[in-house]
Order: sequence, then structure tokens, then C-alpha cells
Amino acid sequence: MTQNIYDNETFFEGYSRLARSVEGLNGAPEWPALQALLPDLRGRSVLDLGCGFGWFCRWARQRGAAHVLGIDVSERMLARARATTPDADITYDRADLEHLDLPAGRFDLAYSSLALHYIADLHRLISTVHQALAAGGSLVFSVEHPMYTAPARPGWSVDAAGRKTWPIDGYLDEGPRTTDWLAKGVIKQHRTLATYINMLLRLGFTLTHVEEWGPTPTQIQSQPTWADERQRPPFLLVAARR
Amino acid sequence: MTQNIYDNETFFEGYSRLARSVEGLNGAPEWPALQALLPDLRGRSVLDLGCGFGWFCRWARQRGAAHVLGIDVSERMLARARATTPDADITYDRADLEHLDLPAGRFDLAYSSLALHYIADLHRLISTVHQALAAGGSLVFSVEHPMYTAPARPGWSVDAAGRKTWPIDGYLDEGPRTTDWLAKGVIKQHRTLATYINMLLRLGFTLTHVEEWGPTPTQIQSQPTWADERQRPPFLLVAARR
Repeated sequence: MTQNIYDNETFFEGYSRLARSVEGLNGAPEWPALQALLPDLRGRSVLDLGCGFGWFCRWARQRGAAHVLGIDVSERMLARARATTPDADITYDRADLEHLDLPAGRFDLAYSSLALHYIADLHRLISTVHQALAAGGSLVFSVEHPMYTAPARPGWSVDAAGRKTWPIDGYLDEGPRTTDWLAKGVIKQHRTLATYINMLLRLGFTLTHVEEWGPTPTQIQSQPTWADERQRPPFLLVAARR
Repeated sequence: MTQNIYDNETFFEGYSRLARSVEGLNGAPEWPALQALLPDLRGRSVLDLGCGFGWFCRWARQRGAAHVLGIDVSERMLARARATTPDADITYDRADLEHLDLPAGRFDLAYSSLALHYIADLHRLISTVHQALAAGGSLVFSVEHPMYTAPARPGWSVDAAGRKTWPIDGYLDEGPRTTDWLAKGVIKQHRTLATYINMLLRLGFTLTHVEEWGPTPTQIQSQPTWADERQRPPFLLVAARR
């Protein structure tokens, strides 16, 4: 089973205080870019892989989705999602994405925000998602960018001249990376950008857009500390069609 | 016009001594991976953008291509290509790839090795190539990897513990980068991996494969100094179909 770090008390408390947990989608700076990749949701059936507190599930219903299924491995997150979702057309299921089974041809959109880089057997999951999408259905997801997940010791480096760089190593050596983020020993799976894309192509998806996300000038004006994120993109956003 | 660095005497002399210039395709460690992306060439019409000494043009003819057109901006390189190509079905034309015009639907394969990262207006060139390909035709190219072209001061960094990293900055800020490689002041164009891919998609190409190339274990055994190139890939290889 995937490490269920979200049910670790320290991690959960820290995660709950992040802007994206408190404010929801608008607290996530990459949300406008991710939203731009989504199809029209009216009357559609939507799947959210790693739904967390259910912010996207509720947003999808507001945008007219007929039904939304949110899946997460964390009991704590699902408990809060359920408590804040008075909507019979949103279903929350607890499942480990490593071993997920889904009905064939059921969904028009499979969505996932910052969850897939925790999955060791991503090929199995994306294959399951592919068969669960209706013909013409969309897959839209974000993950931590491979430049972000690659290094053995991720973090900015500042040289004598004050130049800030992001030191890359291990980029082509895929596999687990253990980092301390909100809690000690969080395990992420590093894979290259090419691996994400080729996996989709081999499974029969047509790639429609790739984005190496960094903050816009307007976002940097309101949050000057984000400027560094343009040195190396923190997130990878991908859209594909079955 | 694109900087024609290949006709700079210092650069040309240095370039002529590289393994890929002396030994041809087999002197380029990424060649096996690039070759694996090529379609069957028998009876096909082939275009080589930045053909240099003509190694690929001659190889394509050996593989049964009906006709090969090699294009390069460098007089010196074309002179050597012509002198070493006794084959009436290979044509070499001098042209600046920034302003290239090509007949519609003429080619089955457009190929380019390590040339497109010199092109400022790549959208114009790829659009020209798209209309010059027959339906179902292939585009296969390599460029310096965006992680390689991004930094203001590209080069390995070694920390006190002997850990070697590649310091990234400026990744999301596309545009010219001036480096000293074989000669002073070589101008390359940095663009992100997403920009390469989205350009193809928007122009109507279907992406078929992306490779962030690094040496294989076998290659590292015979050339141990190449091991570092697995820390961050030096080349990006892309295959797409019209």
C-alpha cells in the first residue's frame, strides 16, 4: 500500500494549515492554469483521484457535473470532505490508488491534483483510468515537477554572488525519494517528464497539453516570494484525451 | 538571420574534431535512441534540417530513402558534405532555417539533430515543416535538453561532500543564452520542454514519443565519464506524426 502520510497526525495538521486546505482551490496558485485545461463539466461524470477535503468535487458540481466520485486513501481527509459536502451527487470512497478498480467507460473526466507522484505503480493506475473513461473523455492532472522531485537533497542553493539555483541530480534515476515536508520521511516517487508522457501515449491517450507551471507576473506582484519558482517549475500539469 | 557559428573558424575547427564529426552517427551517444524513433525509410522522401557534414543524409539513403534533402546554413559544412557524397539522390541546399520555405506535402520524414535550439522563431520553422510533410509523415528531432540550456551559467557544481549537481535557474524564462562552447559567444535559444511539445500539438502534430536522453549502463561502462549525464539529461528527443 502507498504510504498514507495524510493520516499521520503531524502531516495532517500541517497540511490542514496550507492555503490550499484553508481557502480551497483559490488557495492553490496553479489552480487557474489547471482549471484552463478542464473540459465543460455540465452533465458530466467526474472522478477525482486523491480528492482530499473535496474542494474540487464540490467545484465540479457547481460547474454542473452530474455526478462526482472522490477517492482518497486518508480517512481524516474523507471525514472532513463528507462533513462539508451536503450533496447526494458527490460520493466519497476510501481506496488506495495503487490498487484501485473502476468500472469501464463510466467517467467523462478523471482529475487529480498533486497525488500521482505518491503512486509507485502509476502505470497500473493510469491504465485503470484509461478504461474507466468514456471515449473522448479527459484526463487532467498535476504532479510535483520532475525537477522538483529528482534531487537527493531538494532545496535552493545560494552562491557567493547571491545567485539562487536549484541543484539537480539523479534526474534519470527514477524511484522513491524520501523528504521531510510537513512530517519526516514522506515518500514520493520520482519519474521523468518523458515517463509521464510516454506512459499516457502507450496507454492510448492523445496528449493535448503539457504545462511546466510557474507563477505569473501578476501572482508574483501579490506574492513576491514566489518569484523563485520561475527558476525551476514546481508543478507539472498534463491534459490528455482518451 | 540565425548566428552562423558553424562558419566561425574556431568553432568549425573544434566541431570538426568532435567524435560525432569524425565518426559520424556512431560517434553520437544518443544516436541509437534517435534511430529507434525513425520510421522505415525505404522509398521515402527525407528532409534533414541542419544536415552538417551529411552523415544522416547518407545513412538515410543506405536505408533505402528515395531522396534526401539536406539543409544547412554553413557553407563550410555543406562543402564537406558535398565532397563526401557521391549520390545524385542526395541534395544539399544552403538556407537559414529561420526563413526556410518548403513545398507542401513533399516529405515523409523531417529529421533534425541538435539544430533547433539555435532557432529563434521555431514556431515558423515547425509550421513550415508541418505543411511540408505528407499526411502520416514523421518529425523526429533532438535538441539540447531545456535543463541544459536554461542556466545563466551552465556547468556542474561540486559541494563539500563531493556531490555533483547541475544548478538550474531561469528555466521558465525563455530566450537566448550566450555560452562559450568551442568558440566564444555561441547563442542558443532556451525554451521549456512544454513549449516544444505544445508547439507541436497546436500545429496539428500527434506526439508519439518523448525521450530525455541519458547514457545507458553499457555506454557508461565503455565511457565512465558519461555517468554524470544521468544526473540531468543532456538531450531531448521527440517524435511526432502529422
